[in-house]
Amino acid sequence: MVARVVTRDMTSDFSPEERAAVYRAIRARRDVRADFSSDDVPEDVLLRVLEAAHQAPSVGLSQPWRFIVVRDLATRRDVRAAFDEANTAAARAYEGERAERYRSLRLQGILEAPVNLCVVCDDDPERGHGLGRQTMPETVRYSTVCAIQNLWLAARVEGLGVGWVSIVDPHALRRILTIPDHLTVVAYLCIGYVHTFATEPDLVRAGWENRLPLAAVIDHERYGSH
Amino acid sequence: MVARVVTRDMTSDFSPEERAAVYRAIRARRDVRADFSSDDVPEDVLLRVLEAAHQAPSVGLSQPWRFIVVRDLATRRDVRAAFDEANTAAARAYEGERAERYRSLRLQGILEAPVNLCVVCDDDPERGHGLGRQTMPETVRYSTVCAIQNLWLAARVEGLGVGWVSIVDPHALRRILTIPDHLTVVAYLCIGYVHTFATEPDLVRAGWENRLPLAAVIDHERYGSH
Repeated sequence: MVARVVTRDMTSDFSPEERAAVYRAIRARRDVRADFSSDDVPEDVLLRVLEAAHQAPSVGLSQPWRFIVVRDLATRRDVRAAFDEANTAAARAYEGERAERYRSLRLQGILEAPVNLCVVCDDDPERGHGLGRQTMPETVRYSTVCAIQNLWLAARVEGLGVGWVSIVDPHALRRILTIPDHLTVVAYLCIGYVHTFATEPDLVRAGWENRLPLAAVIDHERYGSH
Repeated sequence: MVARVVTRDMTSDFSPEERAAVYRAIRARRDVRADFSSDDVPEDVLLRVLEAAHQAPSVGLSQPWRFIVVRDLATRRDVRAAFDEANTAAARAYEGERAERYRSLRLQGILEAPVNLCVVCDDDPERGHGLGRQTMPETVRYSTVCAIQNLWLAARVEGLGVGWVSIVDPHALRRILTIPDHLTVVAYLCIGYVHTFATEPDLVRAGWENRLPLAAVIDHERYGSH
């Protein structure tokens, strides 16, 4: 089969400037843990980024995500205590120079970011009538993560930093936020305006890990081709 | 604590036009299963959308994703056969009018889309030194899904449709694409130019499911507040 090769630049319904904006948002998005401003996040801005999340794809159009917006300082203090506990345990896994480096990392902005967001997922939703979930039931959680990435990019263009805190016991979040058993805790996010967005990921700047070249993650036709 | 309320419109480093472009990409993205064109997807365009995927956030900067690009027709025929088998089994779960409606749905474009992409994830990567994975090990898979959503949005602005096929046995994909055991199959995507992007999700147009209003998925301070 010989496919027709065409130049598509003229046929996308997004202009070169619009395309560049989307690529720039993707490139300039950062996982933000420090440098949050205490400036309030207006409700209309928060609703715009939540609407972006809500427009994510979902298996069977199940839209299995729920967003718990946390602004209350007492609640955030409880979550911060849960982070501290998990982080103390996590730090024990490292030794020597790596342990020192771990302790120097800034890993959350729970109290500094004025908005926290817990994202939960209904693992067995009625919505969608089960479509697409028989062979891969995990796709409801994956749908929820697609929503988070939409939110992350929308936040970036609003000037809002987002940090995903995974060093926290999901059971602690369940207790603090009264999340019922049929919902899975997928993510806990810190959201707020930031003074500046870093040009490189924090973990690159801290010498924790570097970035892989794109070619290292691509295979052709079958796994292990490169 | 009284937070300072400021108008941020002047302080984002994205112009109103750039912000609108990102929101439009998010809104106009569709899960495409039909209406693929057989036009070839040039390698440079495919690399741009894969680079967008590769710029996703990842726990510990582990970048645990691998992308297997499948263009070979014989391989896609094998995957199509695996889909047919899973779909026949899935259809048995429905009865009456719902069963008829299920059979009328278009659920994949494996042979029509010139590029297929299998996205796999290393569940226990060396990269990242375990950061953030002790309490929530599933975050490596979630990172991989963030990459998929980046790709989906980049594809949209290139005029490329993407369809996520979840009605396929991951073990069949593992066999066909020689994926080793330490990697998890996260997604199988069909990618190609499309004649037109629908304004509504296929499942809404087919009467399978409708969309939830945003307010139905938001809670404040704790779960169950609304």
